Amino acid sequence: MKIAIVGFGVVGQALVRLLNERSGELYRQHGFAPRIVAVMDTRGAALSAQGLEIAALLHAKASDGTVAALADCGVAGVDSEQVIAECGARVLIEATPSSLRDPQPAIRHLKAAFRAGLHVVSVNKVPLAVALPGLRELANYNRVMFRFSGTVGAGLPVLALAQQCALGDEILSVRAVLNGTTNYILWRMHEAGLDFAAALAEAVRLGYAETDPSADIDGVDTAMKTVIFANVVLDRAATLADVQVAGIRDLPRERIAAAAAGQRVKLLAEFGEALRVGPEEVEAHGPLDVPANINAVSLSLRHGGEVTLRGPGAGGVETATGVLRDLLDIWHALGSAP
Amino acid sequence: MKIAIVGFGVVGQALVRLLNERSGELYRQHGFAPRIVAVMDTRGAALSAQGLEIAALLHAKASDGTVAALADCGVAGVDSEQVIAECGARVLIEATPSSLRDPQPAIRHLKAAFRAGLHVVSVNKVPLAVALPGLRELANYNRVMFRFSGTVGAGLPVLALAQQCALGDEILSVRAVLNGTTNYILWRMHEAGLDFAAALAEAVRLGYAETDPSADIDGVDTAMKTVIFANVVLDRAATLADVQVAGIRDLPRERIAAAAAGQRVKLLAEFGEALRVGPEEVEAHGPLDVPANINAVSLSLRHGGEVTLRGPGAGGVETATGVLRDLLDIWHALGSAP
Repeated sequence: MKIAIVGFGVVGQALVRLLNERSGELYRQHGFAPRIVAVMDTRGAALSAQGLEIAALLHAKASDGTVAALADCGVAGVDSEQVIAECGARVLIEATPSSLRDPQPAIRHLKAAFRAGLHVVSVNKVPLAVALPGLRELANYNRVMFRFSGTVGAGLPVLALAQQCALGDEILSVRAVLNGTTNYILWRMHEAGLDFAAALAEAVRLGYAETDPSADIDGVDTAMKTVIFANVVLDRAATLADVQVAGIRDLPRERIAAAAAGQRVKLLAEFGEALRVGPEEVEAHGPLDVPANINAVSLSLRHGGEVTLRGPGAGGVETATGVLRDLLDIWHALGSAP
Repeated sequence: MKIAIVGFGVVGQALVRLLNERSGELYRQHGFAPRIVAVMDTRGAALSAQGLEIAALLHAKASDGTVAALADCGVAGVDSEQVIAECGARVLIEATPSSLRDPQPAIRHLKAAFRAGLHVVSVNKVPLAVALPGLRELANYNRVMFRFSGTVGAGLPVLALAQQCALGDEILSVRAVLNGTTNYILWRMHEAGLDFAAALAEAVRLGYAETDPSADIDGVDTAMKTVIFANVVLDRAATLADVQVAGIRDLPRERIAAAAAGQRVKLLAEFGEALRVGPEEVEAHGPLDVPANINAVSLSLRHGGEVTLRGPGAGGVETATGVLRDLLDIWHALGSAP
C-alpha cells in the first residue's frame, strides 16, 4: 500500500522505523507491504514511486534537518497539497505540528487528501478539535476512511475500546485522565507534598512536560481529546467551544491537602450531559487513581458496570503504534488491493 | 438477520430481552433487525420463520420451564442438530450448559452449524477449551464466522482489546485475573482476615460463587479462558492440556499473611512461554489488585508498556452484551444482506 507522510517529526520518524522493523511480520500476518512514496517536511519532500529507502530517509533528516536532502529523491520547497494530490499514495498520514492559534496547514492537508480520494490517518489533534464534524462529513462525502486513534491515548486503544463497549452495551457516562503531564504533576503534589511550581519543574526536568506546558496544564490538551472522543464514541458533533475547560495552573497546595484521605485530585475529563475538563477528586486506589504519567478511561455502562482502561498515553513510538493500528484497519477494510 | 438459539438459560434469556429492549436503536444505528426463528432447550423448541414473539417466549419458559410450551410455535422433543440445519437461520447462538466431563451436545451443535453454513456465536467455554484449534479450522473450512467474545470477561471486551493492541504493537506477556469468584474469596481473606472456608461460604451466600464452586476454585474456569485467549490473541493452537493449573482450594491463611505489605495474592493466569494458572503475588494497589469480583487483564507491550483493562467479568446480562457485540460484528462483516 502506497503511503504519503506530511510532517516528519518524532511520530513520523518512529512510524517509518516501526514499519521497517515489523515489515516481515506485517506481511506474513496481514499481507501488508507499505511503501512510503512521499515524505514532506517544512523544507521540502522526498519522493519515490518505488518507495523510499527508510534508513537513507532517516539519515537525511538527522544529518541535514530535512528529507529534501535525500539523494536522488529530495526536492526543496514543494507545494504539499499538490504532492498529496499527485504522489499516487492510497493513504496520507498527517503529522505536521500545529497549534490552536493556527490549525493550518493541517486542515488544508486533510482536505487536499479527501478531495484526491486518499484515506487519512491523522496524528494531529488540533484540526480535529476545531473542525471534526465538518472533516468527517467531507471524508464521508469523498468516500474515504478517516482514522485518528493515536490522538487519544497514543498507543492505548481508548477509542476502539469505547466503540466495542458501545456496540453491545450503552455508555452512560465517561470519566478520564487523558493527560500524562498533569497527572504526573498532581501525583507528585500528593506523593511528595510538592507545590505546583516544584512539581512542574520536576516534570519538565524528567521530560514529562514540555518547556511551554500551557496546553497541558490549562486543560486544553485534555479538552481536545474530549472533543475527539465525544464525536467518535458518543456521536456528538462537538468542537472545542462545547467543552467547559479549567486547568490546574497554580493549583494551590491546599486543594491537595483538603482532599480526604480516601481521595486524590486529578485533571478529569467528564462526559455526561455536558463535556467538562477540570480538577476533580477521585477515589484513592480506585480505577482512576493512576500514578505518574499514566492515562485512564472509565466507562460507566448500563449493563456492564464500570469498565476502565489504563496505560501510558503519550510518546512518539507509542503514537506510531496507534497509527499502525489505523493503517491495518484501513488495509483490512479495503480488502487487499495494493 | 435470522437467528437460532440453542440453550435458553440465563444468558439466552438475557440476550432476547436485550435485543428486544434495544431494537429501535439497533436498527437506527446499525440497520440491524434480528429475527429469532428458533429457540431450543432440553425439552424441545419454539420455531417461527416470521420470528418468535419475545414476551410470549419468555413467558412460556418461565411458566412451563420449556420453550416447547409456546402456543402455536412450540414443539416437544426435537433433534437440535436437525433444527440448526433446517431452521433457515444465518447465525447460531450456542448457549447450552456443558461440563468438561461431557462437552456435548455443544460440540455437535457447533459442527452442525458450521456444516450448514451458519455463522456461530458461542457463549460456552467448554467446547472451546477442549477443541478450539479444530473448531476454528472447521469454521474456516466452511467459510463461516465463529465468535465467542463473551466467554472471556463476559461483557468486558478482553479479546477485542488485546487484538487491537496486537495490531500496532507486540504483546510480550499477559497477566490476568479472569475469575470473579476466586478474586472475591482472596480479596475477603486479605481485607477481613477470613480463612478460605469462611470466605467461600460468604461468596456462596452473596451469589458470587455457585454451590459447587469447583471449576472456579480449582482454577479450571480461569484455565479455559486462558486457552481461548491464547488461541485467538497469541495464535497458539492450545487446548486445556497445555495449561499448568493450580487452584486456591483450601489456600492456607498463612499464604495471605506471608504476603508482604505491598502485595496481594491473586489467582493469576500468566501467558509467557508457558500458559499457567495459579495463586501469585501482585503489587498492592497496582493494576491487577482489583477488589471483589472484578476482573483485570494486563498486557505487557513491546512499545506501549503495561496496558490494563478492568471491570465486571461475569453475569447473564453482561455476557449477553458480549454476544450482541459479536452479532453486530458478524452483521457488519456480512455487509448488510438480510
